[in-house]
This record gives sequence, C-alpha cells and structure tokens, in this order.
Amino acid sequence: MLPDHQLLRIPGPSPIPPSVQRAMSQQMIGHRGQETKDLLQRIKPKLMPIFGTEQEVMIIAGSGTAGLETAVVNAVNPDDEVLVIVTGSFGERFAKLCSEYRIQTHRLDIEWGKSVSPESVERYLRQHPSIKAVFSTYCETSTGVLNPIEELAQVVHHNSNALFIVDGVSCVGGVESKMDEWGVDILITGSQKAMMLPAGLTFVAASNRAWKVIAANKRPRFYLDLKKYQITLAKDSTPFTPALSLLFGLEQVLKLMEEEGLEQVYARHQLMKNMTRAAFQAHGIPLLTSDTSASPTVTAIKPADFPAEELRRIIKKEFGLSIAGGQQHLEGEIFRIGHMGYCSPADVLQIIGIIEIGLQKIGKAIDLGKGIRAAQKVYIG
Amino acid sequence: MLPDHQLLRIPGPSPIPPSVQRAMSQQMIGHRGQETKDLLQRIKPKLMPIFGTEQEVMIIAGSGTAGLETAVVNAVNPDDEVLVIVTGSFGERFAKLCSEYRIQTHRLDIEWGKSVSPESVERYLRQHPSIKAVFSTYCETSTGVLNPIEELAQVVHHNSNALFIVDGVSCVGGVESKMDEWGVDILITGSQKAMMLPAGLTFVAASNRAWKVIAANKRPRFYLDLKKYQITLAKDSTPFTPALSLLFGLEQVLKLMEEEGLEQVYARHQLMKNMTRAAFQAHGIPLLTSDTSASPTVTAIKPADFPAEELRRIIKKEFGLSIAGGQQHLEGEIFRIGHMGYCSPADVLQIIGIIEIGLQKIGKAIDLGKGIRAAQKVYIG
Repeated sequence: MLPDHQLLRIPGPSPIPPSVQRAMSQQMIGHRGQETKDLLQRIKPKLMPIFGTEQEVMIIAGSGTAGLETAVVNAVNPDDEVLVIVTGSFGERFAKLCSEYRIQTHRLDIEWGKSVSPESVERYLRQHPSIKAVFSTYCETSTGVLNPIEELAQVVHHNSNALFIVDGVSCVGGVESKMDEWGVDILITGSQKAMMLPAGLTFVAASNRAWKVIAANKRPRFYLDLKKYQITLAKDSTPFTPALSLLFGLEQVLKLMEEEGLEQVYARHQLMKNMTRAAFQAHGIPLLTSDTSASPTVTAIKPADFPAEELRRIIKKEFGLSIAGGQQHLEGEIFRIGHMGYCSPADVLQIIGIIEIGLQKIGKAIDLGKGIRAAQKVYIG
Repeated sequence: MLPDHQLLRIPGPSPIPPSVQRAMSQQMIGHRGQETKDLLQRIKPKLMPIFGTEQEVMIIAGSGTAGLETAVVNAVNPDDEVLVIVTGSFGERFAKLCSEYRIQTHRLDIEWGKSVSPESVERYLRQHPSIKAVFSTYCETSTGVLNPIEELAQVVHHNSNALFIVDGVSCVGGVESKMDEWGVDILITGSQKAMMLPAGLTFVAASNRAWKVIAANKRPRFYLDLKKYQITLAKDSTPFTPALSLLFGLEQVLKLMEEEGLEQVYARHQLMKNMTRAAFQAHGIPLLTSDTSASPTVTAIKPADFPAEELRRIIKKEFGLSIAGGQQHLEGEIFRIGHMGYCSPADVLQIIGIIEIGLQKIGKAIDLGKGIRAAQKVYIG
C-alpha cells in the first residue's frame, strides 16, 4: 500500500482542507487582544447563513456533546417535561442527557434506519400537552437518516408551546438549515463533520423564544451557560479561553464555503448522496434508508449476502480507505460511508471503485465498474 | 516593524513550538480506530509524571474553566460546605463556580499579590470543621503568585477530612507538581500555558480519596462526568469526540518535555523567573510579589513612576512584544510577563532589552542594559 495515503470516509471526523491546515498552524495571539476580536467579528456573520438564522451563533470549546448538553441545561427548566425523538444513537444521547439531569423524559422511539413521521410527533404532543421541549436529531449519524426538520417544527409549534431543539452535528454546513424560517428554537453543530475542521468546537444558535426561556431558567450552569457566550460575543469576545487554532481554521473554512457558495455546497452533498446510493442500487446491494429519508452527508448500507466487517477490513488494508461500521444492535449489520465536508463527487467515484474491488476480493461475484457507471450517470445527469 | 514578527509573552496563550505545529497539522484519523487508541496509550504514561501522580490524567476537550467546573460538579456533593482560597481572579472563578452551583461557599480572601499562609487556612478549617473541600490556585495568573501547595495540602489533611482541589492551569508543566506525595486530591491544568499547545484541552487527575467521593456523588453531570473519562481512558479511548489535532500536538509536546527532562524544564522556569526579577530589581522597579511567593511562569511588575499601559502600547507597536496588563482593580496598576512553556532564558534577555528601550521612550530615565546585565549574571551564576 502507498505509504502516508489514507482515505478517511467515515461520518466524522472528515478530512481537513490543506488551506485550513495552514490557517490552523498560525502562531498563537493574545485571545483578549484586538486581533482576536477582529477574528471573531469576521467569523460571526459568516456562521449565521449556515444556520439560516439572524441570531448570533455561539462558539464553545468542546465536543458536539457539550453542545447538546448546552441546549439541555440552558433551555430545560428543572420541572419541565420533554420529548426526545430517538431515531438512532444520537437521539439516545439526548435522552441520556435529559435523564442524567433527572428531567421527566418522554421517548418517541423510531426503528433505526427510518425517519420520524411528523404525524407521530403530532399525535404524541396532543396526548401530552405539558411537554415543554422536543429534541430531534437532524442527520442521525448512526443510520444515515435525515429527519424532516421543517415539517417537525411545524407540528411542534401547531400542537404545543414547546421549544424545538435540533442536533445538526453531522449535517449542518452540508445540508440546508433554515432555522428562523422553519422555527427551530435551538440548533447545534460540531466542527469535525461538514464544517471541515478537527473536533473541538461546538456551535449553538437560539431563537428569541429560546433566549427568553434561557434567561428565566434557574438551573445551575457555568461553562455551558449560553448567556455568558451571548454577552461576550456581542463584544466580539468569549467568556472563557477560546480554542484559537480552531478559530483560525474556522475563518478559512468559512471562506472556502463562501467561495463555493452555500447553495453549491448543499447541491454537492445531494449529488454525492445520489451517486453513492445509485452505485449500490446498481449492484442490488440493499441500503438501510429509503431515498426520501436518506442524509446527504452519510449513507448506510445493509448487505444481505456478504460480511460488512470483512469488506471494511480489506479496503482499509489494501487502500487505506476507512469507512464506518454499525453501532449498537447494527454492529456488523451495516457499513456507513461519510461523504461530507471536504469530499467531492470524484471522491465518491474512488470510494465506489475501491469497494467494488473489495467485494470481489471477499468473494462476492459482482460486475466490476457497474456501480461506478451508475454514479457517473447520476453526475452527468 | 519587521512584518510577521510577533513576540507573545503574556501568561497564556504561550507560543507553539514548530515541531508541535507540524504535529497538529497531521491529517485526521478515525477517533474510534486503533491509531487513536495507540496515540492515547502513548500519551497517558507521559502525562502522569507532569502531575506527579500514579493516577491516570483525564483529557477533556474544553478550556481550563471546564476543568475547574469538572472538579466542582464531580467532587462536591449538593449539600457540602467548601472553602475557596481567593488570591486573585482565578480564585474568584472557583468561588463563582461554587456559588453558581449553590454550594455553601466560604471564602478566604488574600490581598492580591500575596500568597496564602498555611496557618490562615489551618485556623479557618479549625473554626469550620464541616468543610468538605478546599479549593486553591497553584499559580495565580492575575498576580504571578505561586501558592505553597505542599504546605497547604498538609494543613488541609491535618485539620479536616476535606478534599484539596488545585487549579494548576498556569503552571503545571513548568513547575514541579507532586500530586500524590503532597496529597493533592484533584489537580487541573490547561493546554495553552506551560503545556505549549493552543487552548482547547483541559487535564484533570484525581486521588483515590477523590475518586471515592466522585463515585458516590449524585450531582447530575454528563459532558464533565469524570467517571465517563476514567472508564473510557482505561480502554485508551474517550467518552466523547476528542480534539484530535490537539492530541497530535500533545504527543509532540510530551516528547519535547521528555527530551529536555522534567527536572530541567522546571529549572529553566526557575531561572527565567530569577532573571526577570533581577532585571527589574536592578532598575529599582517594584515587583508585585515577594521572592518567596513569586511564580516561575509569570512575573507581575507594579511600576511606581511610569504608566504600565503606555509601556505595553509602545513595545507592542515598535517590537510586536505583547505582555499583559492587570485584571480587575489592578488594571493599569501592573503589567505581567509570561515566561512559560516555549520560552528560554535568551527570550527573557530579549524581553528585558525591549522593555528597557520602551521605558526610555516613554520618558523614564533608565540606565540601558542594566537590567540585562543583572539577568545575565543570574544566568551565569
């Protein structure tokens, strides 16, 4: 195998663009000085369109889970009842977070691989009028499902006064988010997926309704106190020491996304999804998700007649291509391809080409190139 | 001024060594794969001697304040009484954290610029036998004071059953820490000071006594739940997405510290402190702290006859040298020089040389080179 040649196509972390690597290697500066204020001032307006909001987007040094916890400890009062829509392991995380904080937590469990239907949420909310917050994942990384956030926001607001809180960690930046227009009250993402950075930053934006609840919330919190971030960000600063190297990289990421154009970024992710799905469909290899509930950032495949782990092992060994396996009860049952952030349609062709060789090598008789051809046709249109 | 030539000598963030910059620019890898397990396995044993402990050192993605909060939410039970020793703004932070969590918080306020005396802590603990945890800063960044942690640990343990919790953010890695031998129950540091990394990691180690309290503590916590880090670190993993680029850099930092030798690292910081103090003493410029309570990582100067802010402005403008001002009531009253991490005695000579020119330029009649000479003599010994 060619040394120092790794292809990272798991659903996060995603590869870092060279110019972002260079930006991150800038020497440190005083994080309370004018240079850092200027940096944050340049970053702030470019984050807002990615969230589809006129609200400032808070930047916290921490993993995505810190962002999820930020939503819980700021927006949920001690006595509130909440509903968590669980479509996979990251829905589970919201539920665990709420129960750890002893919040009365209702669960709406959806079969892994399916998206939640707005009707089922509507029914649930009508039966439980006291629910104060509804939690959902946007892209469920563990299954490659994209939940219908716009429709969910509608049913939440038509059937309750609950806040609608969305985990967008594995898709915001690669999939359109219209937080304000749709009525999402809190949207969270992380740095290591479609945002093309190493992990270590989490981003949280809140609606005016959410800010009102946050201001009135008496729950103790300090490092994840969103109000502290709002007050300091208004002055182009942070309440606690910022992760500077990641902020240097973030500015360059935002430049790259602006150059390409957000519409084109989203179209590219749609295209990569369609190419990937077409390739496996051409081979008659089952996909975990339906065309309508599939995410543009990650595709899960559920092979019927070959071992997923065998395939992952051989393509990693022969080509350095890393793809992900399944989580929890789907371990060994599925494999997942990340096509997000710094990933192009040409990379998808490469992934499919390698997987076809891998399938041949593990003894599945396949028509080499057939998946590629299907993906190429999707590209040409 | 020479372009792209900045000298960052504030008490954090500190400059990043070139080899650490290169290490951090390594391409991403799967954070649940074997490579990351191997990386953590290599890092773990090298962190322990820096803390002076046989305990594993937990690595959390977040700022130093997240580390301080980790100590509070894990080691303090809801009904506990605690004592916070406040010798400056970071002691204040511990007090704010505890009061935010509605913990019954006693304060022992010490005049800024002085270190706490073990006797005063002994008296306080005898008067308040119900105190369950004592918080202290090791190096108080805002004043350049180094508190006598070994002696404090003794009086805490001889006069109470309280846990002794220490904020070592601005000195661990540059000043010797013997956590186990001294009897420190929880020691915290951050990545952006003596650890020569960008901000974004915080490190927390706990004694067996502390782990017992943590295990029994019913306080809700999730992202900062230390037990989750302990369980996963034992398997060379992390409970939540690790800040990979900083871990890449951390391994190189630990290599550099091992090459130099920890004893020599600590001796270098002592030497830089003594050189810096000798230089200002030679000019008859008052230091904020006494020789016995001064920190090896940061020196605070309290000028009697020239404006600190004027000096800071001119040396930044003419030489790109950044030093820090004072915080809170010391704003404008003092200036602070960081000599920690990637900083050598030769850098101290440069800092002094620039400051002497700056003093001349703001109209203070000084004997140019006199401070340098004093520092050189300290170096030669």
